[in-house]
Amino acid sequence: MKKRTSLKDIATRVGVSTALVSYVLNNQKEDRISKEVAARIKAVAKELNYRTNQIAKGLKTSKTFTIGLIVADISNSFSASLARIIEDEADKNGYTVLFGSSDENDIKLRKLAHEMINRGVDGLILAPTENAIELLLELKETEVPFVLLDRYFPQFRSSYVALDNFQAGYMATEHAIESGGKRIGMINFRSTHFHLEERTRGWLSALREHKIPGGKKQLRLVREHHLESEVQKTVNSLLSQQEPVDTLLLASNMIAIHALRYIIEKRLKVPKDIAIIVIDETEAFEFFYAPLTFIRQPLQEMGQTATRILLDNISHNKAVSQVNLSPELVVKKSSLHHYSSPLKR
Amino acid sequence: MKKRTSLKDIATRVGVSTALVSYVLNNQKEDRISKEVAARIKAVAKELNYRTNQIAKGLKTSKTFTIGLIVADISNSFSASLARIIEDEADKNGYTVLFGSSDENDIKLRKLAHEMINRGVDGLILAPTENAIELLLELKETEVPFVLLDRYFPQFRSSYVALDNFQAGYMATEHAIESGGKRIGMINFRSTHFHLEERTRGWLSALREHKIPGGKKQLRLVREHHLESEVQKTVNSLLSQQEPVDTLLLASNMIAIHALRYIIEKRLKVPKDIAIIVIDETEAFEFFYAPLTFIRQPLQEMGQTATRILLDNISHNKAVSQVNLSPELVVKKSSLHHYSSPLKR
Repeated sequence: MKKRTSLKDIATRVGVSTALVSYVLNNQKEDRISKEVAARIKAVAKELNYRTNQIAKGLKTSKTFTIGLIVADISNSFSASLARIIEDEADKNGYTVLFGSSDENDIKLRKLAHEMINRGVDGLILAPTENAIELLLELKETEVPFVLLDRYFPQFRSSYVALDNFQAGYMATEHAIESGGKRIGMINFRSTHFHLEERTRGWLSALREHKIPGGKKQLRLVREHHLESEVQKTVNSLLSQQEPVDTLLLASNMIAIHALRYIIEKRLKVPKDIAIIVIDETEAFEFFYAPLTFIRQPLQEMGQTATRILLDNISHNKAVSQVNLSPELVVKKSSLHHYSSPLKR
Repeated sequence: MKKRTSLKDIATRVGVSTALVSYVLNNQKEDRISKEVAARIKAVAKELNYRTNQIAKGLKTSKTFTIGLIVADISNSFSASLARIIEDEADKNGYTVLFGSSDENDIKLRKLAHEMINRGVDGLILAPTENAIELLLELKETEVPFVLLDRYFPQFRSSYVALDNFQAGYMATEHAIESGGKRIGMINFRSTHFHLEERTRGWLSALREHKIPGGKKQLRLVREHHLESEVQKTVNSLLSQQEPVDTLLLASNMIAIHALRYIIEKRLKVPKDIAIIVIDETEAFEFFYAPLTFIRQPLQEMGQTATRILLDNISHNKAVSQVNLSPELVVKKSSLHHYSSPLKR
């Protein structure tokens, strides 16, 4: 087997320190060093086929029994719970998990994926950011197995485990209609993420099938980086318009947390003034005075399935597995307009 | 510089595959391979000074601009929030963070620390498990800089950033007394962790100084792996004894979550039937019908300070920094026995 190109080989050829090569190739900010040097290091690395060696050949000859997991935001309970489940499942199989958190940032995601691969993980589980396609194409070339988690790109063929998000939106909305909702608004993120768009599509589809008026006029989109103020503004606008909504479908647990704070502040009565249904959950929901109705994502199944597919891919099977898990509706008080009626409890 | 010993060098000497050497040295379960082979690999690795080379020499010559973070339980919001803060602070300084979660398991902690060091992290931030001293002694020998987070061992000299936990227990108890508490019980983990013992010591010290009777008779210890049932049992025992407690000091956010569930189930009135104060917090507390009084840990400061100390240690300074951060009392309704009185609000 041909000797692998090392950082030192590149450093010697360029005439710089190994540390500098590592710095440049690990995609660090380059403002501290000259552009010419950075370009030269990258050119030599390419010429010596640095990455291909490290990754494609390196991994096949020596497993490290380590997998990388890149979540969207480790401070969100959704990501943190999944991380714990994947860690437990990997541990059962003798694998250690190294985590990273992209914070929904394409550059961080790329950096983390490169760091992990250069450190020899046997495979990756990742929740891709909005513009991750290019990175995923690169990953395919490296032949490091990977499984997408929670999100995927319908136009990009790869293994993934995700919720059936259309079904989640549809199911939540149908429940709202059955509970007596006549004007059902939705708040979602302003995002091109397919999984979020699917939730909106499910909502809209249920409204249409049940001939509930309003449609997209009752949809509000908020930006993640202005979440608190935009959730307040949009809840307020949906409630104070000429025909206020009587039900709010909230597309994520973080949108819900901010909406609840606003509802408490404004002393609105749930579900009398406004019924609430959330897609996804968080520990806080059960402690709200009207415990929240929500769509449960099967986290245990999601994390375990993703881990198993990845470990299968690592050890033998190169099959592409695409799994859409069914959402579960958990009905509590917040969605029941007439919750004093025994029939509705 | 002497060439580093590689896994391949060891494999060649022992006459096994590189993968097998990696498997053994990364502390994987060894039940699949013979004990003799495993022992031989370890002996040769020691003889060739494998670890020392990889770590002590490797790191000094080529920084990777990566740090490792090992938290206690990534699914706990305390760990997850700290991870996010450390990630942000490291990113500002051009560093990537690889996380791991020990789940309070000594063996997992050791495995993660080894994985990270063998993958060339420049330093480690870690929340040590109960019996981590031996590992910490090893880490000192490797000369990889590390900073302890949240927990430390008073008898072991190293950099750390933690809460002043005695003060936290004391402050919470003093507030309970000032709010009219006469019988103040405490629920803590059954653990030898110094930071948890300090919380109990602070509680006891405040009781004694204010001549509140009861003392250790009002202390209950619960096991982490039986948390739900033991919290229920202990809340019940403190409330149903001949002289029931009127205030509960809960030593962690997870103890509080289970106590609140039980309190809701039993339809107890907070604070009328029982006042509640918690050390540490979680998002759920603000949504409970009587928002919880709690001791806030300065997470931002904790994560940022730990990161800065580590990066200082990596780049030049070998000083030992020990930081005890001040707790902050956040008073809400749950602790105010007479909360309808305007003076108390």
